[in-house]
Amino acid sequence: MALPVLLLLLLVAGGLRAAERSGGGGSSSSAMEELATEKEAEESHRQDSVSLLTFILLLTLTILTIWLFKHRRVRFLHETGLAMIYGLIVGVILRYGTPSTSGHDKPFGCSQDRPFTTLLVNVSGKFFEYTLKGEISPGKIHNVEQNDMLRKVTFDPEVFFNILLPPIIFHAGYSLKKRHFFRNLGSILAYAFLGTAVSCFIIGNLMYGVVKLMKLVGQLSDKFYYTDCLLFGAIISATDPVTVLAIFNELHADVDLYALLFGESVLNDAVAIVLSSSIVAYQPTGENTHAFDAAAFFKSVGVFLGIFSGSFMMGAVTGVVTALVTKFTKLHCFPLLETALFFLMSWSTFLLAEACGFTGVVAVLFCGITQAHYTYNNLSVESRSRTKQLFEVLHFLAENFIFSYMGLALFTFQKHIFSPIFIIGAFIAIFLGRAAHIYPLSFLLNLGRRHKISWNFQHMMMFSGLRGAMAFALAIRDTATYSHQMMFSTTLLIVFFTVWIVGGGTTPMLSWLNIRVGVDPDQDPPPTNDSFQVLQGDGPDSESRNRTKQESAWLFRLWYSFDHNYLKPILTHSGPPLTTTLPSWCGLIARCLTSPQVYDNQEQLREEDSDFILNDGDLTVTYGDTTITANGSSGPHTATTSLDGRRTKSSSEEALERDLGGADNEVTSRGTRLVFPLEDNA
Amino acid sequence: MALPVLLLLLLVAGGLRAAERSGGGGSSSSAMEELATEKEAEESHRQDSVSLLTFILLLTLTILTIWLFKHRRVRFLHETGLAMIYGLIVGVILRYGTPSTSGHDKPFGCSQDRPFTTLLVNVSGKFFEYTLKGEISPGKIHNVEQNDMLRKVTFDPEVFFNILLPPIIFHAGYSLKKRHFFRNLGSILAYAFLGTAVSCFIIGNLMYGVVKLMKLVGQLSDKFYYTDCLLFGAIISATDPVTVLAIFNELHADVDLYALLFGESVLNDAVAIVLSSSIVAYQPTGENTHAFDAAAFFKSVGVFLGIFSGSFMMGAVTGVVTALVTKFTKLHCFPLLETALFFLMSWSTFLLAEACGFTGVVAVLFCGITQAHYTYNNLSVESRSRTKQLFEVLHFLAENFIFSYMGLALFTFQKHIFSPIFIIGAFIAIFLGRAAHIYPLSFLLNLGRRHKISWNFQHMMMFSGLRGAMAFALAIRDTATYSHQMMFSTTLLIVFFTVWIVGGGTTPMLSWLNIRVGVDPDQDPPPTNDSFQVLQGDGPDSESRNRTKQESAWLFRLWYSFDHNYLKPILTHSGPPLTTTLPSWCGLIARCLTSPQVYDNQEQLREEDSDFILNDGDLTVTYGDTTITANGSSGPHTATTSLDGRRTKSSSEEALERDLGGADNEVTSRGTRLVFPLEDNA
Repeated sequence: MALPVLLLLLLVAGGLRAAERSGGGGSSSSAMEELATEKEAEESHRQDSVSLLTFILLLTLTILTIWLFKHRRVRFLHETGLAMIYGLIVGVILRYGTPSTSGHDKPFGCSQDRPFTTLLVNVSGKFFEYTLKGEISPGKIHNVEQNDMLRKVTFDPEVFFNILLPPIIFHAGYSLKKRHFFRNLGSILAYAFLGTAVSCFIIGNLMYGVVKLMKLVGQLSDKFYYTDCLLFGAIISATDPVTVLAIFNELHADVDLYALLFGESVLNDAVAIVLSSSIVAYQPTGENTHAFDAAAFFKSVGVFLGIFSGSFMMGAVTGVVTALVTKFTKLHCFPLLETALFFLMSWSTFLLAEACGFTGVVAVLFCGITQAHYTYNNLSVESRSRTKQLFEVLHFLAENFIFSYMGLALFTFQKHIFSPIFIIGAFIAIFLGRAAHIYPLSFLLNLGRRHKISWNFQHMMMFSGLRGAMAFALAIRDTATYSHQMMFSTTLLIVFFTVWIVGGGTTPMLSWLNIRVGVDPDQDPPPTNDSFQVLQGDGPDSESRNRTKQESAWLFRLWYSFDHNYLKPILTHSGPPLTTTLPSWCGLIARCLTSPQVYDNQEQLREEDSDFILNDGDLTVTYGDTTITANGSSGPHTATTSLDGRRTKSSSEEALERDLGGADNEVTSRGTRLVFPLEDNA
Repeated sequence: MALPVLLLLLLVAGGLRAAERSGGGGSSSSAMEELATEKEAEESHRQDSVSLLTFILLLTLTILTIWLFKHRRVRFLHETGLAMIYGLIVGVILRYGTPSTSGHDKPFGCSQDRPFTTLLVNVSGKFFEYTLKGEISPGKIHNVEQNDMLRKVTFDPEVFFNILLPPIIFHAGYSLKKRHFFRNLGSILAYAFLGTAVSCFIIGNLMYGVVKLMKLVGQLSDKFYYTDCLLFGAIISATDPVTVLAIFNELHADVDLYALLFGESVLNDAVAIVLSSSIVAYQPTGENTHAFDAAAFFKSVGVFLGIFSGSFMMGAVTGVVTALVTKFTKLHCFPLLETALFFLMSWSTFLLAEACGFTGVVAVLFCGITQAHYTYNNLSVESRSRTKQLFEVLHFLAENFIFSYMGLALFTFQKHIFSPIFIIGAFIAIFLGRAAHIYPLSFLLNLGRRHKISWNFQHMMMFSGLRGAMAFALAIRDTATYSHQMMFSTTLLIVFFTVWIVGGGTTPMLSWLNIRVGVDPDQDPPPTNDSFQVLQGDGPDSESRNRTKQESAWLFRLWYSFDHNYLKPILTHSGPPLTTTLPSWCGLIARCLTSPQVYDNQEQLREEDSDFILNDGDLTVTYGDTTITANGSSGPHTATTSLDGRRTKSSSEEALERDLGGADNEVTSRGTRLVFPLEDNA
């Protein structure tokens, strides 16, 4: 067991020596005049390699330690917290361990009328091309390139948005457990939209108070507008789906709570991105550029709605196109091609949205959900596991990279502004902001929900509001001004604090709040109702068994029947044949769009979806629904009728009930199908 | 079937409209003075998205057409050729279909003493940071940014070397069928090293003649040195493993020929990279900087040997470290962690080599081979398929991207110099260069080989020498001077020509040369000897059956026994226990390093390697080796002795014979193991 640790030490030592050598190498090359640029380019490339290598060693270390922790069942620190700690350590070493070198001498004096993106510079007869990197505030000129190595490990903020976030968010959408998500859709949307808006507004206002206070005590040295405070509210309202849910998954905690938290934090991210864009777009006209202006406010609201719906559309459309392509071509004979196509189409969503001025990350989320809902059904078995595993690996690497970069950034980012008042104020504000949206919203939702969100669940949701990759990525996007720098430093601290405390405290909190753990979603035998009723608080009474239908909202039922009768048959090989669901005058189109598989193995194919839509045995149990046996017994009945080429009656109501019915039904029909051929043969 | 075509058209139309819009958008934004940089940055980001989107649509199109071709069994055009054609079409449209805009006005006049990598420019009180992009030849200043969209789709050449080539080359190493490779190791090394050197030298000299001729007829307008010709020889000597081998794989062509071609072209690439670096490093001192200089020549040879062996070591070492980590940790319980670690370690090889001044691509190749040979044995079943599939997808995407980019580059690259004499000369030179290394080397090798490389095989190898991604990546690396630009344009044409002709002609050529196809490597029953002897040309006589041992070279046998007795047991869970192979005074170390699994399921684990080392049934048959039954009968014998905890006699000779014995032996021992527990119970 000592060997891995030895290896780690060797790796770290190697990485650091390389980093130091390259840090020192930058200054020594300036002596030679001849071949100076070539040498410098080579040296720069080498330093790039070293800095990337540093990150890879960091990730390798993290992975090995994660394994050790998992192996020894250590739970006080989550892997993301671990990644941050390693990042911190390397950051400290880079900051204080490497010599500070100054790459260039003084600002280039000649002035232009406006900054071009490309610059041609004449150096003793030779022309060199330069590209614009960004503006530097005048006070910081001498800090630029203070330390070559620190500069090298500082990524372009857009890298986070354009390279690291998309796979994380896509994976979130693609691995969404749809059934739980859709059952709680109303509550999730309320938490995500209303909740985030409330949280953003409350935090923004509280922080404006803090800023006023700072001005009073003379702690504020530069401008800090109300819009900046609101932007901070938007940035910090994005809760992270990663850490808590990883623990939930590991402990098999209550799936309903899981669905609420996961749905909230995923949509939350999308809302926060668009919200912050809208706040940036809030530019009142006239003299008073940072006061309230109704026209500008409504413009911002318009921008929010426009960007959100546009991104949603982009994601849904590319998802639908992928579903159509995979349905109408026999691409599934070549899993490699299929996987590659899936990957490219999903990536193109992001680029398409960015090219059209929408938000790629949001588009990618909805694309992931659409792909999981439709395209996944059309993929070959191999492609299903390939695509899932591909995005799982990408997501894992991207996420750990972001978290270790966060640790690194605390020491290597050169424009930190830590203000104790602002930081303390921010902690209080996010606490109040979260409380002010979880409890009142839950109260309001409970008025409409048949299955109340219990107090324990509310406390857990309150506790789980940790901030992560999205808040960081939003904060690092713009660190040009004083206020943004202070916001970035504060965000970083909040992320550290919440990830460490919440990540480590989830397990004790779950047991303290009596939240059910150890539920295996794939397990068939349902746990006894007694143990559950205790934990649920206001347990379901026996009256509820016949109300399965009523418990889903009418909007959801409407969508479900539309999806089941039209979208699923058009986009996938499953669902009822369109010839039965569409009016008879659409006969020709219906026949074209319905895939031949539907008639034959309609039931069989629908079940392949089970990886996403199954795993729900306990949800049904949560509601104490014992009507499943009745539904289950109707399973073989529909299967029989489907054998003669066409379903006699495919009411979407029936299908919804069956789908919501859950595992028991599935098991019955599975058992029935196994028996079928034997009966036929006999 | 019309639907996919419609979709394609829609996609293309969409992509182009977006491209045009953004092409036009660049010029319109210059009107606003306020917020000019922000707007420009946004516009630039949007254009980046559009250009990436163009490539993704290109790839999507290619994938769908590949599917159509595979579906309809079209073989006259390979997928890489297809990718190039699509690239060409889009290139033409971008070149002639988009308006040419001029982004910046005139070269920035102020002169410095030397070009800095970073530049600070003072624009009316604000400071902007610029980074060096590269030198521009004075004549081309007005062509810079002639067309915004063309500039956007032009990638930094280093992208090919640092992002796209590594996964391709790693995949080549990782998917290497080791057994075939090692059996023909001597010949492969000869072809790869001697062959490439001969080819490089002959092509270089012939091209120097062509250049002299061009000078005579006044077709040469700038300098073209002898070293440039040699560099061209090195660049164009890199044959591509992709196209022909894909067809070989599909048709299940002769595995021996496959091994020769694959091994040659993979190592070839590595040799060509290092060779071109060495030629660039050839800088004679004194006045006559481009004439022959013995000191500089030997320095170049030294550089070649240094870079090659250094890169080899780097690759091998990270492979070995990964093997050790995966062996001594129980990481295989968490396939995701394992896959991520594998990916990171393999990538770190590349960076480590680059950081140390070696060649990352070469290191990655040997890392891939090491990972396949050792680490693969330690991975969990899930990780094995995950890692293979991950790199398969990456390889597929990167390769098709490079080929479609090549098509695009023919029209969008703005510094093409097409010289008819040079191009015709180059085609003749590569033909002669390949002939001059295949035939004489085969003749020499046949003197030593017991199983001659037949004339048909030689003709096929001659024919299969197509140039691809590596030649392109080497040529695009440096296009600063006149000679390099001419070389790049010529390389591009050679790649097009060879990929289309050779890619399309492989199937007819195989049948014309009577090379065995339709061999299923996984098939157990060997084909009859008659049909084979006809094709083999100089068929194996019955005398050969007892010479299995002698046919592998002594060097290979030495390596094999070392590998089998020491490396495999140290690095993996397979092989004989070290306690039996190491001298007795190493008892403690041996016990520490030997994994406990070795004693129990030694045989079982070795078989898990079969994915790489099996598939060889026909190789044995190729040599008409009928001693397999004798070997096969010794299978159950060793299995029995291994059951009592430790092998009595684990001679590496025996193991080598068994390994080389091939499939029949495998089948026998597999059958035996299935019977074993029953016998024990009875």
